[in-house]
Amino acid sequence: MKSFVSVPQNSDFPIQNLPYGVFSTKADSSRHIGVAIGDQILNLAEIANLFDGPQLKAHQDVFKQSTLNAFMALPRPAWLEARARIQQLLSEDCAVLRDNAHLRSRALVAQSDATMHLPAQIGDYTDFYSSIHHATNVGIMFRGKENALMPNWKWLPVGYHGRASSIVVSGTDLKRPVGQTKAPDAEVPSFGPSKLMDFELEMAFFVGGPENELGTRVPIEKAEDRIFGVVLMNDWSARDIQAWEYVPLGPFLAKSFATTVSPWVVSIEALRPYFVENPVQDPVPPAYLHHDDPFTLDINLAVSIRPEGDAVDHIVCKTNFKHLYWTLKQQLAHHTVNGCNLRAGDLLGSGTVSGPEEGAYGSMLELSWRGAKEVPVGSEIRKFLKDGDEVNLSGVCEKNGVRIGFGECRGKVLPADI
Amino acid sequence: MKSFVSVPQNSDFPIQNLPYGVFSTKADSSRHIGVAIGDQILNLAEIANLFDGPQLKAHQDVFKQSTLNAFMALPRPAWLEARARIQQLLSEDCAVLRDNAHLRSRALVAQSDATMHLPAQIGDYTDFYSSIHHATNVGIMFRGKENALMPNWKWLPVGYHGRASSIVVSGTDLKRPVGQTKAPDAEVPSFGPSKLMDFELEMAFFVGGPENELGTRVPIEKAEDRIFGVVLMNDWSARDIQAWEYVPLGPFLAKSFATTVSPWVVSIEALRPYFVENPVQDPVPPAYLHHDDPFTLDINLAVSIRPEGDAVDHIVCKTNFKHLYWTLKQQLAHHTVNGCNLRAGDLLGSGTVSGPEEGAYGSMLELSWRGAKEVPVGSEIRKFLKDGDEVNLSGVCEKNGVRIGFGECRGKVLPADI
Repeated sequence: MKSFVSVPQNSDFPIQNLPYGVFSTKADSSRHIGVAIGDQILNLAEIANLFDGPQLKAHQDVFKQSTLNAFMALPRPAWLEARARIQQLLSEDCAVLRDNAHLRSRALVAQSDATMHLPAQIGDYTDFYSSIHHATNVGIMFRGKENALMPNWKWLPVGYHGRASSIVVSGTDLKRPVGQTKAPDAEVPSFGPSKLMDFELEMAFFVGGPENELGTRVPIEKAEDRIFGVVLMNDWSARDIQAWEYVPLGPFLAKSFATTVSPWVVSIEALRPYFVENPVQDPVPPAYLHHDDPFTLDINLAVSIRPEGDAVDHIVCKTNFKHLYWTLKQQLAHHTVNGCNLRAGDLLGSGTVSGPEEGAYGSMLELSWRGAKEVPVGSEIRKFLKDGDEVNLSGVCEKNGVRIGFGECRGKVLPADI
Repeated sequence: MKSFVSVPQNSDFPIQNLPYGVFSTKADSSRHIGVAIGDQILNLAEIANLFDGPQLKAHQDVFKQSTLNAFMALPRPAWLEARARIQQLLSEDCAVLRDNAHLRSRALVAQSDATMHLPAQIGDYTDFYSSIHHATNVGIMFRGKENALMPNWKWLPVGYHGRASSIVVSGTDLKRPVGQTKAPDAEVPSFGPSKLMDFELEMAFFVGGPENELGTRVPIEKAEDRIFGVVLMNDWSARDIQAWEYVPLGPFLAKSFATTVSPWVVSIEALRPYFVENPVQDPVPPAYLHHDDPFTLDINLAVSIRPEGDAVDHIVCKTNFKHLYWTLKQQLAHHTVNGCNLRAGDLLGSGTVSGPEEGAYGSMLELSWRGAKEVPVGSEIRKFLKDGDEVNLSGVCEKNGVRIGFGECRGKVLPADI
């Protein structure tokens, strides 16, 4: 399938992708919902009236909102109908847009003219810890090889509540956080800028569909109805603040200074060709977490760092999302098994994605093995992040000659304010 | 000072209190902002035009909203002006309302005719762990006397992110949660209803004022400008789910099934007469947490349980909010020291409030000492909560013949859905 909109080679956004985002332009500072196609954006507000199928005809207003929440909150058949319609309207065989220069000029916006915003108002943000290689690496570093994985780790997808207010969109710079830290040999804690700034390579999915009422759970057979789409996520971490504060209630200020997400939400439907067999889980988890259908995503992930003044990104990590031990369905079913209500626009992070080999670790903590090794970054070396470092994440799926990607998830570390 | 609205003896809501809430009635299902006075509610939407002072004249629309967020987001001088105006309008010396039967009939609603709702849309909910008696008790139970308090506990107010979507208003029943638990002597975890359901007696404050931009902190000297008002909070907990899931990232499903808050937000201005000296902090915390002005609240707190079929509440705990080690200002300054942005409507919980003596413990975990003791509840006994148990929290300040209170914070445990 091809679009009449020309799609540059190696674009993340061919007609097979069609991710949703929220954008504004210099000429129009209001936020609109758009779909990426090549290096253009299709402004859905301008073509809302063309969504005239049975699911969407009465809900065209969802495309005129300034966030994706209302669209996300529709049931999954509405998402499928929207995707099919957008794919049809953008295909080279469909005249509706292709041959209407006036409509095209209103509805197509160059990505270079657009500013991207958070795709949704995020009610709650949860972060899981679902990569066995990451959890094992961190466990070995802090508790030794014998106790690397906690006893609960293979029985349930460990997760915790994160901070929603400090989630920002790709391109937002962030200040190095200030806080309390305590060196192992120090008598008392010190106060100052974090010295161990880190990225965490993650993916996250937005919840969609009608909210499950508080007290009811989403069975795993229905979990897919609540998974709207996926983004890249950098869960910035201040390792020294984290080490001091996190017992016994978990990470807090070490994470809540910023979390960056990519602006384009790639739907599960676009990702369907890239599902592969799930990892074997031993022990077999409880029945509420069982599912046999493949729901593990083959997405090539990479992290790059661009030091201040450097002109290019230098890749420091290459891994794959398929290394996740727990599937997105298992995360969602677990999250609601106690009756917790999930609302459209909630964000569920995967946890740091690390592969089995050294170059496939998704954080500087692991790449530098807690500062014991030097990681080459172009002509420089790093153990953790320096001020001026710009980190970018990328994600790409490829199969049968089709390549879809996630765009950028970029942020630059600014010096701390003291 | 007295109101022309008659205030029953021992009412929580004399003219010195004037807490804000959101209500609807059978006759009018829209949500309105109101202020409690005796057993009445003053509907602020009906008198919005009377807020004609310099701070509020241009913002009368905040009183016509369905949540308190917009009002909370105004700077503190606007809160003071609103309170002074409401107190004036309700005083026995002011004719505006007193002598206008038509306006009174529109603006005053009986509390018995009203349904209360969550006072604000809660963007993020944070829970601290600021009672030294509670932290010590739990520490002794799980780690022994020697290691009761973690090394960080006296250096910073330990806190974590909680779940915002499952916060409900007093009067909402909740189902016993289902989940994974593992008995210490069991080989593998089991799945089923929690057997160790608990309450946690807490208070929480709503953040107000203009949002601090991400990357900027609120210095402790300005912390009061961001503290809008206080409610009672029951942070329901499933101890057996918590024990199995919480390492290493903190409590998750053990808490996210429900958190109950009282509907009436008592302003800091109403609480000002009840500030007492802060506890001595040794070691002295870092400078960003220093303040000398008394900001510790003398609020008598109690918890009662009413078993299914019983006609009365039986008190199981009496304590005082002044036992908190960290002040609300310290919690807020700490929360933002890393640049985390707090938005109007965010909720910050105190953590379980326990006093030094046995009857002053704010959870069944402590009252029954992890199930080792029986707690009398009327003619019954409890170690943890049973289905049908209705828990209520109360809070009352008394000084110089004035008594203000927080109303009810009530919820009933329903059987689990399996």
